[in-house]
Amino acid sequence: MTVISPSTTKDLYPTRSGEKTEILDRRGPIAFGSAEQGPLDAATLQHYDDKGYLTIDELITPNELETFRAELHRLANDPTIKDDDATIVEAKSNEVRSIFDIHRSNEIFRKIANDPRVIARAEQLLGSEVYIHQSRINYKPGFVGKEFSWHSDFETWHAEDGMPEPRAVSLSLSLTDNYSFNGPLMIMPGSHQRYISCVGGTPEDNYKKSLVMQGAGTPDPQTLSDFADEYGIDVLEGPAGGAVMFDSNCMHASNGNVTPYSRSNIFIVYNSVENTCVEPFAAPKPRPEFAGSTDFTPAGS
Amino acid sequence: MTVISPSTTKDLYPTRSGEKTEILDRRGPIAFGSAEQGPLDAATLQHYDDKGYLTIDELITPNELETFRAELHRLANDPTIKDDDATIVEAKSNEVRSIFDIHRSNEIFRKIANDPRVIARAEQLLGSEVYIHQSRINYKPGFVGKEFSWHSDFETWHAEDGMPEPRAVSLSLSLTDNYSFNGPLMIMPGSHQRYISCVGGTPEDNYKKSLVMQGAGTPDPQTLSDFADEYGIDVLEGPAGGAVMFDSNCMHASNGNVTPYSRSNIFIVYNSVENTCVEPFAAPKPRPEFAGSTDFTPAGS
Repeated sequence: MTVISPSTTKDLYPTRSGEKTEILDRRGPIAFGSAEQGPLDAATLQHYDDKGYLTIDELITPNELETFRAELHRLANDPTIKDDDATIVEAKSNEVRSIFDIHRSNEIFRKIANDPRVIARAEQLLGSEVYIHQSRINYKPGFVGKEFSWHSDFETWHAEDGMPEPRAVSLSLSLTDNYSFNGPLMIMPGSHQRYISCVGGTPEDNYKKSLVMQGAGTPDPQTLSDFADEYGIDVLEGPAGGAVMFDSNCMHASNGNVTPYSRSNIFIVYNSVENTCVEPFAAPKPRPEFAGSTDFTPAGS
Repeated sequence: MTVISPSTTKDLYPTRSGEKTEILDRRGPIAFGSAEQGPLDAATLQHYDDKGYLTIDELITPNELETFRAELHRLANDPTIKDDDATIVEAKSNEVRSIFDIHRSNEIFRKIANDPRVIARAEQLLGSEVYIHQSRINYKPGFVGKEFSWHSDFETWHAEDGMPEPRAVSLSLSLTDNYSFNGPLMIMPGSHQRYISCVGGTPEDNYKKSLVMQGAGTPDPQTLSDFADEYGIDVLEGPAGGAVMFDSNCMHASNGNVTPYSRSNIFIVYNSVENTCVEPFAAPKPRPEFAGSTDFTPAGS
């Protein structure tokens, strides 16, 4: 456990302070590492640089997939898990939406979060050792799965968790097939190259609402329309067992899901150990440990 | 204006009466007409028979599209239209969701609803003259557009409007591009061949709720899952100016829309003049005239 440093760090990505949306260029490299380091090849690194994400067709074996899915179902039906603070429940349907901190609370997911297949890619992308900033299971149940509006994760992590720079990557490991119709991840490819400084402040304990439905840190409709016209929208379909790794500043969203096919994934955020969190840049206090970890111990070690 | 006949018509498609979902085979032909009659060719008719729908790449000219879109925007911003009973407003956002009866209230849409390009196809599919059972503009605004759960239109029209048999076809004319990501029409292809008899009754004035969010007449999740596994889900993408015609008993739905791209269409229901409505089969009284017309005058005449 590392103590949070006082926030003397310069705020390179101001947000939630002004009355007008501002668009800043993103600084520094996106993919830090080179193809020689492996395992990601040059074309994949270039795609990540240009589009802000990469896809992996089969990250885990069919046996692992079966184990993970069984664990997913077990957790969703465990009443002590449902009552835990780190579990987020849908406002209307009372169904489990997310279970946070699974890389610390669950042995099966601790292992995959520290697995060399994942860590090597994250280290190559971020150009350093990495630690886990946040982890969760996301459930998008069939029929009632809710949407998530457009946002940059980095904007929230910067404002509310004190992450200095967008030198972090998210892994979304699919435990169900992603079809165009069951509310898959949508990314505006290229949007990670610009940072949208949002208006307004951050209400106290904003995370209690924002993990269910965003408010603060959501860009205005006109800016989002301009971004969509400029960058387009990629719909990330793909089979269970595959994964997406995407830059922390990608503008992304997902629609709701009225189909019978649930959409569930394991979501793990790796941050560079050279980019550890300080005091929040635009919130009265940091979010709880399950949303933004202060344990900066390198993963996989 | 024709007086509704007393309901001595045999109920071939009972629904909302039992305590258990039942699945009945659909009776009679699906595409009634032959390719010789035109304008639909043999392959298109076969597709309609098998899948329950057909698509038209370009039903209207670019000039017409422009005119229709301008009229759409004008109506959405007319306060007298918003206050009208035939206008359905989103519960949460207070945005206009649908404007009904546009084939009677609006000259531009009266014309297209009676246009030979449409009527000839509807007559060929239904094997008789046709009349307009219902018409509406559907708006699915960007960012806040809401989903529509799985349902068969015929189940509602039978239960609440007294339509004897599924000898009706819906035209959905796209006024905006349909992408996989902005909440397009989804159809379970082949599902029109079986009728799901739903449980429960119909609350009085059910239409006031059901036009915003269905309750009565919605199949149970297990039946929908079985149907999806058996038939699959077709996502109907396509450019503005194109159209879909689909059988009244197709199981269909659409997801919400968090993208900036609105999705709007003109929706017109043609019923065979040999299948005119009688008393409702499973509701205390018929829906208002704007939802189920009692003017059985042949369209296009």
